[in-house]
Amino acid sequence: MGGRPGPVYLEIPIDVLSAEIDDERVRFPAIRTRPPLTVPDRESVAAALDVLKAAKRPVMMAGTSVKWSDAAEEIQAFIEATHIPTFVNGMGRGMVRPGTPELLNRVRKEAMQQCDVFICAGVLLDFRLGFGRSIPADAKIIQLDIENELIGTNRSADAFVVGNLAQSFRQLLGLMEEQGVGVDHSAWRDALTAREAELEAAFAESLNSDEVPVDPLRLCREIRDFVADKEVILIGDGGDIVAQASKVLPVPAENAWMDPGPLGTLGVGMPFALAAQLSRPDKRVLIIYGDGSFGLNGFEYDTAVRFELPIVGIVGVDGAWGQMIRPQAAVYGANRVVATKLNFTRYDKIVEAMGGHGEYCTRPEEIRPALERAFASGKPALVNVVMRQDIDTGMKGSTYM
Amino acid sequence: MGGRPGPVYLEIPIDVLSAEIDDERVRFPAIRTRPPLTVPDRESVAAALDVLKAAKRPVMMAGTSVKWSDAAEEIQAFIEATHIPTFVNGMGRGMVRPGTPELLNRVRKEAMQQCDVFICAGVLLDFRLGFGRSIPADAKIIQLDIENELIGTNRSADAFVVGNLAQSFRQLLGLMEEQGVGVDHSAWRDALTAREAELEAAFAESLNSDEVPVDPLRLCREIRDFVADKEVILIGDGGDIVAQASKVLPVPAENAWMDPGPLGTLGVGMPFALAAQLSRPDKRVLIIYGDGSFGLNGFEYDTAVRFELPIVGIVGVDGAWGQMIRPQAAVYGANRVVATKLNFTRYDKIVEAMGGHGEYCTRPEEIRPALERAFASGKPALVNVVMRQDIDTGMKGSTYM
Amino acid sequence: MGGRPGPVYLEIPIDVLSAEIDDERVRFPAIRTRPPLTVPDRESVAAALDVLKAAKRPVMMAGTSVKWSDAAEEIQAFIEATHIPTFVNGMGRGMVRPGTPELLNRVRKEAMQQCDVFICAGVLLDFRLGFGRSIPADAKIIQLDIENELIGTNRSADAFVVGNLAQSFRQLLGLMEEQGVGVDHSAWRDALTAREAELEAAFAESLNSDEVPVDPLRLCREIRDFVADKEVILIGDGGDIVAQASKVLPVPAENAWMDPGPLGTLGVGMPFALAAQLSRPDKRVLIIYGDGSFGLNGFEYDTAVRFELPIVGIVGVDGAWGQMIRPQAAVYGANRVVATKLNFTRYDKIVEAMGGHGEYCTRPEEIRPALERAFASGKPALVNVVMRQDIDTGMKGSTYM
Amino acid sequence: MGGRPGPVYLEIPIDVLSAEIDDERVRFPAIRTRPPLTVPDRESVAAALDVLKAAKRPVMMAGTSVKWSDAAEEIQAFIEATHIPTFVNGMGRGMVRPGTPELLNRVRKEAMQQCDVFICAGVLLDFRLGFGRSIPADAKIIQLDIENELIGTNRSADAFVVGNLAQSFRQLLGLMEEQGVGVDHSAWRDALTAREAELEAAFAESLNSDEVPVDPLRLCREIRDFVADKEVILIGDGGDIVAQASKVLPVPAENAWMDPGPLGTLGVGMPFALAAQLSRPDKRVLIIYGDGSFGLNGFEYDTAVRFELPIVGIVGVDGAWGQMIRPQAAVYGANRVVATKLNFTRYDKIVEAMGGHGEYCTRPEEIRPALERAFASGKPALVNVVMRQDIDTGMKGSTYM
Repeated sequence: MGGRPGPVYLEIPIDVLSAEIDDERVRFPAIRTRPPLTVPDRESVAAALDVLKAAKRPVMMAGTSVKWSDAAEEIQAFIEATHIPTFVNGMGRGMVRPGTPELLNRVRKEAMQQCDVFICAGVLLDFRLGFGRSIPADAKIIQLDIENELIGTNRSADAFVVGNLAQSFRQLLGLMEEQGVGVDHSAWRDALTAREAELEAAFAESLNSDEVPVDPLRLCREIRDFVADKEVILIGDGGDIVAQASKVLPVPAENAWMDPGPLGTLGVGMPFALAAQLSRPDKRVLIIYGDGSFGLNGFEYDTAVRFELPIVGIVGVDGAWGQMIRPQAAVYGANRVVATKLNFTRYDKIVEAMGGHGEYCTRPEEIRPALERAFASGKPALVNVVMRQDIDTGMKGSTYM
Repeated sequence: MGGRPGPVYLEIPIDVLSAEIDDERVRFPAIRTRPPLTVPDRESVAAALDVLKAAKRPVMMAGTSVKWSDAAEEIQAFIEATHIPTFVNGMGRGMVRPGTPELLNRVRKEAMQQCDVFICAGVLLDFRLGFGRSIPADAKIIQLDIENELIGTNRSADAFVVGNLAQSFRQLLGLMEEQGVGVDHSAWRDALTAREAELEAAFAESLNSDEVPVDPLRLCREIRDFVADKEVILIGDGGDIVAQASKVLPVPAENAWMDPGPLGTLGVGMPFALAAQLSRPDKRVLIIYGDGSFGLNGFEYDTAVRFELPIVGIVGVDGAWGQMIRPQAAVYGANRVVATKLNFTRYDKIVEAMGGHGEYCTRPEEIRPALERAFASGKPALVNVVMRQDIDTGMKGSTYM
Repeated sequence: MGGRPGPVYLEIPIDVLSAEIDDERVRFPAIRTRPPLTVPDRESVAAALDVLKAAKRPVMMAGTSVKWSDAAEEIQAFIEATHIPTFVNGMGRGMVRPGTPELLNRVRKEAMQQCDVFICAGVLLDFRLGFGRSIPADAKIIQLDIENELIGTNRSADAFVVGNLAQSFRQLLGLMEEQGVGVDHSAWRDALTAREAELEAAFAESLNSDEVPVDPLRLCREIRDFVADKEVILIGDGGDIVAQASKVLPVPAENAWMDPGPLGTLGVGMPFALAAQLSRPDKRVLIIYGDGSFGLNGFEYDTAVRFELPIVGIVGVDGAWGQMIRPQAAVYGANRVVATKLNFTRYDKIVEAMGGHGEYCTRPEEIRPALERAFASGKPALVNVVMRQDIDTGMKGSTYM
Repeated sequence: MGGRPGPVYLEIPIDVLSAEIDDERVRFPAIRTRPPLTVPDRESVAAALDVLKAAKRPVMMAGTSVKWSDAAEEIQAFIEATHIPTFVNGMGRGMVRPGTPELLNRVRKEAMQQCDVFICAGVLLDFRLGFGRSIPADAKIIQLDIENELIGTNRSADAFVVGNLAQSFRQLLGLMEEQGVGVDHSAWRDALTAREAELEAAFAESLNSDEVPVDPLRLCREIRDFVADKEVILIGDGGDIVAQASKVLPVPAENAWMDPGPLGTLGVGMPFALAAQLSRPDKRVLIIYGDGSFGLNGFEYDTAVRFELPIVGIVGVDGAWGQMIRPQAAVYGANRVVATKLNFTRYDKIVEAMGGHGEYCTRPEEIRPALERAFASGKPALVNVVMRQDIDTGMKGSTYM
């Protein structure tokens, strides 16, 4: 129940588990259902605001602690008041409302290179941000996070606000009002938005590709279009395919997206889906699988069958561990790749053998109807899509390195 | 490369892995292909012999370090010279030649209760031997092991011989000869053999049962009869089924049996089988699966298909985690078991979907022909046998507790 | 720089320490001179106040986190507004102004046994409070501390306020005002004060004892009287003698008392004194030593001589490790104590040999003049007082158990 | 009781320590009074001998495991049979008989640079041997040690013999005899002996220096001459002074020398001496102290007084932490040294204050008579010798780096 929640492993020795004790000696602890919502001190908020007031091209990245602070409403209010261009990562996805003009995606790298103030809103400067080197050396950093010990990780923060992020954003806005300070970065936002549109256009070709085997981005577009009008919990379980999907699929709401996280723990697909479906029986759940990942825990479809959970998965099958095979080919040669090729296995038939519903697609136009049938089947279902295998394309696309 | 080998995990950071270095600066270490075969000192061998000479009802248990010492020949010579009743456990299985009159199985508990000297030949007094309490308090213990630090684990040894076990047995026999000492426990062995035969008879009914669904012991007997005239590497991957199989199946030779070991690490079946088949392409490999275990790594049949390895598995399907469900039922009631039931999944169809060969048996007489066809298929194959589900039989049979 | 400060050990490998780097590549981190002062959320403060409002016999214990929160002023205001009887422990000593009517000492055990609400103000329920068992099972606990993870240690808190304690007390008082709530426990305080006076009287005999060798409490009284009109930083380094001194000596202000802490790390006397004297050259420093402790780091007087620091120590010499020898004698017999006797060494002469000033007292009336001369000497000085040796007095007095 | 003994720390929780148990339930373990003396296997001995037979300029270094193997007699026999030039380090000191022509000291560096085979006899290639870089890259290494896991540390061994070293040397000599192999390196030894004599002459000036304050090497010579005809256990406790003493003082026998070891754990002087004197009441014990080290545990003279142990110490007082101050001066300048100067404290007077005997020497000719008086006093005694302070002599002499 700390400020920064995380998974807990609790092991009880079998002799303790099976021990008996008098009811009278049992004392139940006071149950703490949520962590304390610490409020930042005024002084640190003022210091952060001072840095922000001097900013010309600020950029905000919203991440994990925004979620743990339950701060969706407050970060939204802050963005709308300041028009600061904002990106999301990790568990920050879904915390900013899709369609918010300041919420950008493809222009991230360029925006970071140009920014003079970078706001880490519950985001650590870990490998995903070059340990802080992705931000210009002379840019100032404002860090908001839940725990004091997270401040200054890998690169020191010029100003920092420690506390629940909902409280922190509220305090920032309150102090701005109190000081009569206006912060309006809509011009800077507009410049980035224009650039975002250009980058989006370059994507369009792949998104609409009629290629056979299917282009991975076309696969993602089909999923995007399919879920557009539905409330679906999306779960990514893969490397390449998840990286691609995160560029194409908007996350409509909090808790509507889960993925393997910064450590890339593949295999989370069905375990996450089982938990999601059981805790939200009213919602539909869709897993986006790579074929490498499917092999790790795909057998858990058996569990979904046993518990009659109508979870749907879609697996992009390119017969390879994509994020591994491309660096291997680039460094050692495409004919010297090792342990990174897979079969074009009929995963759909495996799911059928377990008692689920299977679909098999080799052409892009088959995907949408297959998804429709899978959702309609009322059973655990898997849509198997044969994709283009990219091996010898250099480091292009998403790689692990 | 220590005296007591074990698995090693080697992690190389990616920057080290991809670093380059001048050939001239590379210095290759002297390669050590096997551990040093330390010889025990004469004094400790003499002390052990003194304890042995006074024994009236000695019992020997042969385990892991016999294997790591490559001491099959020497322990056999020692048994033949002394006629000491001998049991095997863990990786000791296969180290004593099947058919050796001193090699006993079912009478183990009774023999241990009566013994006055217990020889731990590469065996630790861990939970499998009640941390030493399975041996009478006034019995003497002679321990032979590879490393000094293994001596006296959980219960102290009255005499101990540290060194390679092949060397230790050789020294023991050498010293007996030198001293003109004869040790002959054939009468004690004969008494135990007679009792073993009685217990064996009690087993016969289950082994020959025509029950449908199939009795687990009948399944094991079918396997035993099938492999009797073949050189097959057997791999156990399960709880109940492996415990039963180890009572029925003799292990004909070293390296002819692998199982989840003392920690019960389920899921080792196909990984072990892949390694065994690749390193011994001339041999056939048979995995004996429980259905719980199959679900953990059964997906690796895909790997066997990809590498065209004709590994055969047989899975006893009782729709339950047997070693867990029976204690649950005994403690909480058969209607309150939780997380220990499984589906009667058609695992054979899954293997077929991957490109392998599947067989499905519901009656005992179908098993043998199915195994014949599976081995003849030349493909990765799985024989799915529907077994009797034992839940409410109390603690009878093999349980975890 | 966390919420709960503590010692830090920083090791720099010699190759890093002696490496050179271009000035241009050096990036200085933003220096954080103090931890963030997190403010508790209103909801938790309200919950704590609800518990407090129902209290009939509340007791507060103020400890370490009061100090780290710099909350002396705020806790004083809270006590004065509510008249809640208050005790201090560990680094809480000196945080409540001496003479405050609510600040009690000897009646602690009785007060805790009678209380219905216990306020842990920066205090953990560790072994010093019987892991929470010193508080009646049906009493409610309100815990105020800096870090969320400290809440509920060993016994769960019925209400808890996480944040800087200065902020927390301010919020509590603010909310009381807002709600128009009055809390007045002066009657309960008066009852305890009366009882405190009775216990104090029982002490008087020892405090005034003219016994030779000197009674330890008389020694403490002499110190108390000597420092009464001076600003002296007191440092305790011992077991028994420090336990006794803490019953006799009031702590006039924050940072005016340091001791071996809950882990009883003996030997801290001179190290603490050196740091205190160097950082507060305007103040005088007095170490109260037991003879066992003096032996651990007494040699550091050499350092005081080298740096010309006029630190004064007083050592109560009873030729024994008191907190150990009494339990030994009680359990095994006074004639079977082992490794707990010391010499009546002339520690004063050792200090003289190093170049300091020494005093030697065998009678109580000699102590005060010796202290006067030691402080006047302008040199590191030690007053050696021969005390009564208590061995066979059972568990009476302060013991470790 | 492993092959490579070391200190053990045993902590018993107070509740376990004070628990009571029925006598009947107590089972005493079989006591193992010494580790098993494992014998190396013949094959590895033969491989080592093959390397040795090809050697032209072999050098042997004898260290810790020679002692733990109780192999003084066997290494002596090996040296006498082969005439291989031999050095000792760490606990190997005293294992080769002083006066053995092959036992060399000052020529070590040159010998190692020229050797073609280096025998590590119970010696690790740690920082003291440049992690193996002190030996020519093309020299072969033969390693003899007790535990397999010590083989190949930092640099791989070309041949290795694992087992008790007494057994290993015996096997080597036995195999040489069996094979009729003669190994005679007396010519190579004579060449090094001649060079050793030259280096010894260069030392003579310091050893005989009449300088005031006293030259450290003259101090060491006085000690050497004093102990020459006595059986004294020598204990070194210091940096510089111990490094110098080890160049001057021969170690006459096993267990006649103890020092701070490879980790330089200063302060061991009196603790080692107390143990030595208590276990060998018939012997005399002399501690050679640096003044830095004396300050760490010199107070333990109080213990020696309490137990009436006539331990004698001699402390070389140069008012500095020598091995630290010289590198500081060399790197930062002699006027910028920090925390490395000490007082010229009268440590002898401190010992007198504790009840021991003190001597103070400022001239070299006073040392010998002072040692005589100290040993004759029958009390714990300390001889304080004021030495020359070397600060600005560059890295000359012994330094830590």
